[in-house]
Amino acid sequence: MGTGRDDPVQVRSQYHADLDRVWGSLVDLAELARTAMVRATAALADADLALAERVIGGDALLDARRRDLEELVFGLLATQQPVAGDLRLLTAALPAGAGLERMGDLAAHIARAARLRYPDNAVPVELRDTIAQMGRVAAELAGDLATAIGTRDAELAAGVPAGDDAMDTLHRQMFTILLAPSRDQRIETAIDISLLGRYHERFADQAVSVARRICFILTGRQPAPDRDT
Amino acid sequence: MGTGRDDPVQVRSQYHADLDRVWGSLVDLAELARTAMVRATAALADADLALAERVIGGDALLDARRRDLEELVFGLLATQQPVAGDLRLLTAALPAGAGLERMGDLAAHIARAARLRYPDNAVPVELRDTIAQMGRVAAELAGDLATAIGTRDAELAAGVPAGDDAMDTLHRQMFTILLAPSRDQRIETAIDISLLGRYHERFADQAVSVARRICFILTGRQPAPDRDT
Repeated sequence: MGTGRDDPVQVRSQYHADLDRVWGSLVDLAELARTAMVRATAALADADLALAERVIGGDALLDARRRDLEELVFGLLATQQPVAGDLRLLTAALPAGAGLERMGDLAAHIARAARLRYPDNAVPVELRDTIAQMGRVAAELAGDLATAIGTRDAELAAGVPAGDDAMDTLHRQMFTILLAPSRDQRIETAIDISLLGRYHERFADQAVSVARRICFILTGRQPAPDRDT
Repeated sequence: MGTGRDDPVQVRSQYHADLDRVWGSLVDLAELARTAMVRATAALADADLALAERVIGGDALLDARRRDLEELVFGLLATQQPVAGDLRLLTAALPAGAGLERMGDLAAHIARAARLRYPDNAVPVELRDTIAQMGRVAAELAGDLATAIGTRDAELAAGVPAGDDAMDTLHRQMFTILLAPSRDQRIETAIDISLLGRYHERFADQAVSVARRICFILTGRQPAPDRDT
């Protein structure tokens, strides 16, 4: 007893190790999304083509990690009978993982905007501060998520929507500057900035959505609906 | 035997009825997303404020239906031990439901763009045809999804990406017209159209993503990764 492959104690301990892998996988995804946003923000600020390429190329890793997470969760649902908190983890890990992967996509879109205008800077001088701040807020949200998931801290996760409010304020400020009559009225710039603003806004929205899933896993309370921007 | 509340035959038959409710819920969501897109397209084409409001107000129904679906799936995962195709349905119904709800959000965003510029038309004359076509393609994709889910037709679901290609072509055409040097160069218009294009594009992307989930449920083959636009 206690040594066989089908020993119930070992089977349970493998199950718990697998649940930890689900948590670990979510932390990894959040960290990857954070790093992608930090780098995309720098690539945009400095018109740094090599860094932009790194973010764009790195997105495949997030996609692969999300697929690994789905397979792991699917396998656990198929072979175990998870209940209560474990079941919440397994069911909410799927949309949380999808949200984190999407955050990586959006960081890659920002990097693509930097690449598209290289060697020019995609962002006109008067908007650089605002866009850089949006990037910093986005990266911080992803960092908070990674920490909240890693330490299973529902309170920290519950604080993520406040960061999204900061993003909305910056987003409005961005449009005010973009529409100021004094500035250069190039259509390409208006298109680039509208879309860049959208990518940052959606990154933050996804962070809020993931944070709500994490709160649900940890507390069992259904998250309030997303704001759907 | 055969009449008691805990009779195994009745329990199984309740289980199968619940699985049918999951399918039915996905059909409803796809139908709601399709209707929202049809109406949003008309609201935009005709600067129809009442219709725009109807789409915006109707979005709460999609959100509620998605939450109902999640609760149903969660309950089934907690109380049954679904395997194979049933398990695929239950796990893939969550991201599919999320994608369909998101399609409704995007239709509501299009309706908001119509409302924002009312009584003006949000779309300049030279772009109306293209944007209306984008709306029609989007609505058709949602309609194909509803039919594919309703009839459990993997082949029809597998055809959805081809519709997304049509959307990408229209989206490029939209930018060509927007950037034509001859046209009115208003920054507001460039912003509106960039975002409208994005909403349509994302609606189609989500339709592809949902279609892949449906193929997975029906065939057991993992869908190819999304293109992440």
